[in-house]
Amino acid sequence: MKKKSFSPVSRKDYLIPNVSDERGLNLYIQEHGKKKTVAVQGLGFVGTVMSLVVANSDHGEYAVIGVDQATEDSYWKIADINAGVCPIVSSDPLVGEFFENAKLTNNFYATYDSMAFSFADVIIVDINLDVTKAKDDLGNIESYDVPLVGFKKAIESIGQVCKEDVLILVETTVPPGTCQKVVYPILIERLKSRGLPTDKFKLGHSYERVMPGPNYVNSIKNFYRVYSGINEHSADAVEKFLKTVISTDEYPLTRLKTTESTEMAKVLENSYRAMNISFAIEWSRFAENSGVDLYEVVDAIRLRPTHANLMYPGIGVGGYCLTKDPLMASWASEEFFGLESGLQSSVKAVENNDKMPMFCFDFVSNILKHHDKEKTSIGLLGVAYGPGIGDTRFSPVEDFYNRLCARFDNIKCQDPYVPLWAELNLEIEMSLEAFLANSFDILIVTTGHRDYLHNDAIYELIERSSNEMIIIDTVGLLDLHKLPTHFSQNKNFYVLGVGHNEE
Amino acid sequence: MKKKSFSPVSRKDYLIPNVSDERGLNLYIQEHGKKKTVAVQGLGFVGTVMSLVVANSDHGEYAVIGVDQATEDSYWKIADINAGVCPIVSSDPLVGEFFENAKLTNNFYATYDSMAFSFADVIIVDINLDVTKAKDDLGNIESYDVPLVGFKKAIESIGQVCKEDVLILVETTVPPGTCQKVVYPILIERLKSRGLPTDKFKLGHSYERVMPGPNYVNSIKNFYRVYSGINEHSADAVEKFLKTVISTDEYPLTRLKTTESTEMAKVLENSYRAMNISFAIEWSRFAENSGVDLYEVVDAIRLRPTHANLMYPGIGVGGYCLTKDPLMASWASEEFFGLESGLQSSVKAVENNDKMPMFCFDFVSNILKHHDKEKTSIGLLGVAYGPGIGDTRFSPVEDFYNRLCARFDNIKCQDPYVPLWAELNLEIEMSLEAFLANSFDILIVTTGHRDYLHNDAIYELIERSSNEMIIIDTVGLLDLHKLPTHFSQNKNFYVLGVGHNEE
Repeated sequence: MKKKSFSPVSRKDYLIPNVSDERGLNLYIQEHGKKKTVAVQGLGFVGTVMSLVVANSDHGEYAVIGVDQATEDSYWKIADINAGVCPIVSSDPLVGEFFENAKLTNNFYATYDSMAFSFADVIIVDINLDVTKAKDDLGNIESYDVPLVGFKKAIESIGQVCKEDVLILVETTVPPGTCQKVVYPILIERLKSRGLPTDKFKLGHSYERVMPGPNYVNSIKNFYRVYSGINEHSADAVEKFLKTVISTDEYPLTRLKTTESTEMAKVLENSYRAMNISFAIEWSRFAENSGVDLYEVVDAIRLRPTHANLMYPGIGVGGYCLTKDPLMASWASEEFFGLESGLQSSVKAVENNDKMPMFCFDFVSNILKHHDKEKTSIGLLGVAYGPGIGDTRFSPVEDFYNRLCARFDNIKCQDPYVPLWAELNLEIEMSLEAFLANSFDILIVTTGHRDYLHNDAIYELIERSSNEMIIIDTVGLLDLHKLPTHFSQNKNFYVLGVGHNEE
Repeated sequence: MKKKSFSPVSRKDYLIPNVSDERGLNLYIQEHGKKKTVAVQGLGFVGTVMSLVVANSDHGEYAVIGVDQATEDSYWKIADINAGVCPIVSSDPLVGEFFENAKLTNNFYATYDSMAFSFADVIIVDINLDVTKAKDDLGNIESYDVPLVGFKKAIESIGQVCKEDVLILVETTVPPGTCQKVVYPILIERLKSRGLPTDKFKLGHSYERVMPGPNYVNSIKNFYRVYSGINEHSADAVEKFLKTVISTDEYPLTRLKTTESTEMAKVLENSYRAMNISFAIEWSRFAENSGVDLYEVVDAIRLRPTHANLMYPGIGVGGYCLTKDPLMASWASEEFFGLESGLQSSVKAVENNDKMPMFCFDFVSNILKHHDKEKTSIGLLGVAYGPGIGDTRFSPVEDFYNRLCARFDNIKCQDPYVPLWAELNLEIEMSLEAFLANSFDILIVTTGHRDYLHNDAIYELIERSSNEMIIIDTVGLLDLHKLPTHFSQNKNFYVLGVGHNEE
């Protein structure tokens, strides 16, 4: 099963076209004669919402074209958008509002035709750039690579047709050095071969800090931005553009001296977060072994402002960024800048984090060591990689689920945001009520969706369900004191990162 | 040369007594008949100021006795205190004020006689517990140990004479599990052998978060405290006591369930900080190699509240805590709780941090690669391990200085807080003006004392000094724009963590 960047809502089997979209593009451009055109390359988790933010800019000055590929994985998003269906399931109501508003003003069109770039005054690059990693049987990272082929092709498709004075803004997370050493030379070469001047286009880098949860839109529109340009007039152009789409009065922009600087800032930011998460892993084991409640300890420490971002224990880190950005940084430090052994600590953080679901499985299987393979029925609450989102890319629950499946036969999953677990091609029950009507022997909380706590629904449902049920909370979501009285710490109720107290 | 816990101010050669202090103690106790007696074991950086805070409690209800050993390293502190000389040099004026006030009310006495514990209603344990580490030639940690012999002896000296209902509050940073597995059994055994009941004494753990800089006193008195007791009535007693000496209205206390929990909280806190510092190391090298100004990048990222504690590059981490606490934690996880491979990430953080002065030396020696060994005169600004303090214990400047000495013959050091660099037995120039009257070829900023920036004194002094001088800032203290105009980035002025920009 191929990975989808997110689940298709309409789930229609669209027929993938094999002709150009010239007619559609021309019609759209004609309608918006006076507006500036912004093309967004890549309709993933960032590109789609970035498109919506640009289409909803305060003065309605932009006609937006979202561009993605006419492949099985991506075409449905293009078709959804043009059919007036928002391709994103989100806990943030602004996503839907922005989409409806763009429909009303008709300034969001989607296409698979790279001719779109020829109309664009601004092109935002939001395509994915993946990292490949090879591991040994114990989960240790043996090697990793950043294959740039696809990314280079995407930049070439821009250079092939773009206006000579276009502003190209790279938002993709790239290995530091990429704008200078990869993107810039390609554009120069393409423009030269088209007989165009090479000193008029503007190239900049600015990374988003998107968080696809309840503040999805605001994490793009109302948040600090760091940006840079390949030269002064590029940086000026990026600044001017960002000021029209982002609330820069409230969240002032920060200009850095070089594109290497902003590229580094992005991967450093995520490496730092990955490392902070990785830090909690060994301490979870320590707490479990020494009868300590790590949640209590972390809460006490977080009172210090300098330690407020200390992480709680958990099943693991997922998503598209934290699992690869540190490797991307390390790769660039070696490949582009000759740092001999890369960034070992950052690589180690990814390796540790990737092992979290395994540790979580060990914790769970230790509790369930006497449970029968065939007779035990297990319910998993949450498959997304984090609270409030429908994103299952690199979800730690996937590894955990696979390990659990090898040990137990009857496992069902629920998630309020995931209709289809794309990576496993598994239909997911979205209703908590319907799900808990099953009588589970074991209930395992695997994603910290706040929805589970709304109106204490989950506690009431647990109250009504089997009396013998064991609950294992791998993300510290549930409150012991709200559970029915036959649950007590380490009896019918276990929390990852909380040890037995041997008093 | 032995390490002193801090530099003696009076530098008198006190004659170390070899008789008991019975008379002194009795006199002091008689004077304070109605007051409760608090004995503080250990007059180091924590114990001395903790004593002052207790002696200055709001209701003046405590007579304080500071207890340390009659050794060359410690006796001078006892004599200083009783002679009315504050043994601490600090940038915090409250230290002096609290000391003067305790003199006025005569409620701070110091002794080397462990009979002091027999008078005490409360005993606070503030002695040091060290970690030994063995490294290979490359600085990799090969092994580490926490020898408990001295610590056990200290606890025994309490158990030998203490009241049966004493409250013993351990503030020393100890391997998690120590109160339960080491302190408690010793006290039980001692009281038993003295024919006393073993259920009346109270034993608790509460760690300070002392920062021996400009907020030295307030980092004890006005800051959050975490505490625990070996049992319920111990925890209650700790709570009651702490409320009388710390501003708990403003900074509420946090009670944790077990002594293991607070012991773990302390070392986890410091391990987290050590790891955050360690994180910056590889990125410094990366920035230097890719022409990036890491300071600029860190500043941009720190705008995110979740990343506000991201560290700047620097010469290294020193002091008594961060260089050992992560190892202590790892040691306990193996020795006390059977965690197979300890806390590898925490050990790695210490190893990385210990290597920082070496990286700093590499950075500096690369800049000075053509400078003559004999003719070059070098000035080092700062030998303390951090800004605003006179503490040179495990200062990263020590390793850096030693490496520099092997390469250059003429090196002088300055520090406004360190009259004598105890570890190297080196007299230190405390006046910046006198120091910069030397004509240095190279000036290296090695500690970020804010004093250097007061009234821009340093810039004026640099202006008046040699025209050919090269300045290397290893802690990001100086502002390029305030330096004389012949300094520019990477020309006469270099900053660790800032790369050449090859534009």
